[in-house]
Amino acid sequence: MTPDPVNAFVPGTAVRIRGSSGGPLSGLSFAAKDLFDVAGHPTGGGNPDWARTNPVPERHAWAVRTLLAAGAELVGKTITDEVSLGILGESAFDGTPLNSKAPDRVPGGSSSGSAAAVAAGLCDTAIGTDTGGSVRVPASFCGLYGIRPTHGRLPLDGMLPQAPSSDTTGWFARDATTFARVSSALLGEPIPDAVPTRLVVAVDAFGFADPGVADALRPLLDRLGALVGEVREDLLAPPGLSVWGRAQRTLQPAEAWETFKGWLDRDNPRLAFNVARGLVMGSTIPESELGWARLMRQEARARLAWLLPPGTILAMPTTPFPAPRKGLPLSAQNPIRERILCLAAHGGLAGFPQVSIPGGELDGLPVGLSILAARGADAQLVATTLALESTR
Amino acid sequence: MTPDPVNAFVPGTAVRIRGSSGGPLSGLSFAAKDLFDVAGHPTGGGNPDWARTNPVPERHAWAVRTLLAAGAELVGKTITDEVSLGILGESAFDGTPLNSKAPDRVPGGSSSGSAAAVAAGLCDTAIGTDTGGSVRVPASFCGLYGIRPTHGRLPLDGMLPQAPSSDTTGWFARDATTFARVSSALLGEPIPDAVPTRLVVAVDAFGFADPGVADALRPLLDRLGALVGEVREDLLAPPGLSVWGRAQRTLQPAEAWETFKGWLDRDNPRLAFNVARGLVMGSTIPESELGWARLMRQEARARLAWLLPPGTILAMPTTPFPAPRKGLPLSAQNPIRERILCLAAHGGLAGFPQVSIPGGELDGLPVGLSILAARGADAQLVATTLALESTR
Repeated sequence: MTPDPVNAFVPGTAVRIRGSSGGPLSGLSFAAKDLFDVAGHPTGGGNPDWARTNPVPERHAWAVRTLLAAGAELVGKTITDEVSLGILGESAFDGTPLNSKAPDRVPGGSSSGSAAAVAAGLCDTAIGTDTGGSVRVPASFCGLYGIRPTHGRLPLDGMLPQAPSSDTTGWFARDATTFARVSSALLGEPIPDAVPTRLVVAVDAFGFADPGVADALRPLLDRLGALVGEVREDLLAPPGLSVWGRAQRTLQPAEAWETFKGWLDRDNPRLAFNVARGLVMGSTIPESELGWARLMRQEARARLAWLLPPGTILAMPTTPFPAPRKGLPLSAQNPIRERILCLAAHGGLAGFPQVSIPGGELDGLPVGLSILAARGADAQLVATTLALESTR
Repeated sequence: MTPDPVNAFVPGTAVRIRGSSGGPLSGLSFAAKDLFDVAGHPTGGGNPDWARTNPVPERHAWAVRTLLAAGAELVGKTITDEVSLGILGESAFDGTPLNSKAPDRVPGGSSSGSAAAVAAGLCDTAIGTDTGGSVRVPASFCGLYGIRPTHGRLPLDGMLPQAPSSDTTGWFARDATTFARVSSALLGEPIPDAVPTRLVVAVDAFGFADPGVADALRPLLDRLGALVGEVREDLLAPPGLSVWGRAQRTLQPAEAWETFKGWLDRDNPRLAFNVARGLVMGSTIPESELGWARLMRQEARARLAWLLPPGTILAMPTTPFPAPRKGLPLSAQNPIRERILCLAAHGGLAGFPQVSIPGGELDGLPVGLSILAARGADAQLVATTLALESTR
């Protein structure tokens, strides 16, 4: 066996299941992050002790069922950061999937293998999960379309949970047309023709990003403004993106601890040090901090509801910079990770839908432009990406 | 290859080195915990990422050199809890070495493989390390002789450190005669004929142990009293064994964090969850707690110096109970581990020498009787075990 240069698929998990014939996704291939159940195959969860200590699923996850029923063919299960805990996509167990557009950089995580597989052309689309940025961030780093749908909209059965109040199923594609076809099938509605009429540019988010990011995204943002018509600037997070980040990094690790503590206690699994550290820190968050974070979540939801009435979208950089280098020590990763999470926190905190679009390049590295809309307006975001594409 | 039922030796690390001919340990075989360097062989440290990220040693560790020079033959490297962090001897990577006298029980750790190899008769003696109990505890659980020498007495070069202010090299044997031969070679002095003349029975330590332990140890304690002559009762730790335990469990994890933090940061190794958790908790200990623990260490040293003038030994149960069952969830292990560490804490805290003697049986399971002496009086403890044996 020659080593797989892309390293997107979990070694030893060959799986191929043809989709229903004649469906709307006929001819498309897809991969599933190894957090999604495929009947008869162990769900690895990115950790050797997860599969060992959990039963082999007897039923496909909802997202897998839906794509197969729509005619897409499953071609593999993809590498994930351990039990979805990671934002860079470097796994101590399975290695680092290739970022095809930036081979010396991380792919982003935790849906690292799904992004790498689509970016390398190994499949047309791939499903991932996004709790705190795990689809949006690899989409930005790998130069892909990626969606975090409205929280609570799509069934999550058969998907390994992390923090249920933030968990979503998302997906990737290389081009807007494929992205729209897959989105229509998973959202269960047609993609409309109409595009939004008002655009809010999140000046705090652009200011939070590295200086070159706004310049790199400017041409696409200008085209987006021209497409939509009315453009205004406003703050995404008046209390501070770092305050929203703090609230999400309080709620999410505490919930992840609740999700995994039974497994940790019973099976004492092997974990990369930084993954274990995150879980331990999640176990130490006091109730007083959780109470504060829940209040901040309420305020963030209200802020986004006010910013995003029907027909309005918001634009922001998906990540504060392009993909960081691979193999950094943890002490160098930590500030990077924290900045990424600050710019992604509103997703898990407020649950509004977000699409990351291949936005531009900085020093030859891709970085994504994100658009957000009202809860439930996922299809309108997809429509916007299609319309934008036609202006290229 | 058939599976090794004892599982004492690290898989894939076959090593055999003959000792110098004509030495005092001629005819004896020994094994070395995989924390000790053997030239030309990777030091595994009980963790797959330790060997991978550290150079292969070019020189034997001091203890290995000394035993080879004395004529003993090295027959293998033994399984250890990860980087010596563990007291039960259940490794998430290498499994649980057999406790031959109690097959459904843990062997004790972290020198689990060394104890298992000696207990199963695979070698005559084996070296281990004892920072917070890692030789004394498996000696008690497996029914062996085991020593934690005076801290600072023996060179530790080539031994993977954990918490240097508590680290020692110890060893195991099945019988008092072999134990004395090996001890003489490693201590570098003959074992005297004279035995101590005063015995202090640590009533707090006996009271801290399970009710049946004192009864199980009574016959041996009575023989010890008869051998020594003068017997009195006193407290080992007037502030409380749990207070000494707290001080040691403050100093030791903080030092372990200092020892391993560079490795963790650079290589983000895979670790069992409980090992990672211990390291993370070590990183969070505030300086104010460390300051208090250092003061308590001073007081513990003064207490033991006062209790143990030359010619006096102290007796106590090595562990508060025989070996616990294998495979308990972490939540059930934690109170067990804490009680074990309370009864072992004086070793790392004060640095006085201690020998654990096969003490008796409780429900058919071995439990050790420990004797302590003044700093530097290691050989007198060994002499006492020899004299005791002759009274059987």
